[in-house]
Amino acid sequence: MPRLDLEAIELTNRTGYPDPFDQPVSGRWYRRLAPVGGLKHMGASHVVLKPGAWSSQRHWHDDEDEFLVMLSGEAVLVEDDGETVLRPGDCAAFPAGVKNGHHLQNRSETDCTFVVVGAGNMDGSGGYTDIDMTFSGEGYFHRDGTPYPARRPR
Amino acid sequence: MPRLDLEAIELTNRTGYPDPFDQPVSGRWYRRLAPVGGLKHMGASHVVLKPGAWSSQRHWHDDEDEFLVMLSGEAVLVEDDGETVLRPGDCAAFPAGVKNGHHLQNRSETDCTFVVVGAGNMDGSGGYTDIDMTFSGEGYFHRDGTPYPARRPR
Repeated sequence: MPRLDLEAIELTNRTGYPDPFDQPVSGRWYRRLAPVGGLKHMGASHVVLKPGAWSSQRHWHDDEDEFLVMLSGEAVLVEDDGETVLRPGDCAAFPAGVKNGHHLQNRSETDCTFVVVGAGNMDGSGGYTDIDMTFSGEGYFHRDGTPYPARRPR
Repeated sequence: MPRLDLEAIELTNRTGYPDPFDQPVSGRWYRRLAPVGGLKHMGASHVVLKPGAWSSQRHWHDDEDEFLVMLSGEAVLVEDDGETVLRPGDCAAFPAGVKNGHHLQNRSETDCTFVVVGAGNMDGSGGYTDIDMTFSGEGYFHRDGTPYPARRPR
């Protein structure tokens, strides 16, 4: 059945981010949709951001496109150029290789939900705008290339 | 600006389907989001189905994943196994190579809207469940391989 039974999919707030970068995403609860849906050419997640939570550290992907659809509530999209409020029905696109770090912040009093899809090299690399961290398929690194201690699979 | 200004994107009901297969999609109005958003690894469309309209002929892709998020209104997802009503917030996944033809029908009295994303071989091939037609990057064909007369680019 192509319609996904969201309630039946595990909801998790797992992250591989090293301490203390994991703190702002502790209220990011998500369901991975691609494995359940049988999708192999894209990743897709259904995400609930609790009040105060971030979607990620502000980041970009070198070789993966990201596309986001806002479903409920309100979030603030933060990028180099400033801030934009996203409301239900809003769509946002983050092309591979554009080093304009982005993330969503839920500054409201209620949950917000969105779906995010990624395609390209889903085991690829990228960087973080605001912190001394980069990522690749191998894990998280300081900008000088020193690895962060491994935590758990993201 | 990653947030897409949907109103500024051309709304079209173009189709390359040969007559009479184009009739049920004449009330399918869509905006192509990937070119405007700079996305290269996926296709994405924002679609408005007028009452009575179909999203496509019932089809599958041999080598492209499709993923759909319902935004407003109500549509009936039709596939080999039967019918499923999709409502705002519902997600549906159509993996590459699964020959279970699918489409959406708007049987309601009001518009419905959804976003659909595709990734994989976006110039690839596939088939139609209910009609004597197949497709490839080259165009539309009868099941015996005879091409349909070319119309306009899809």
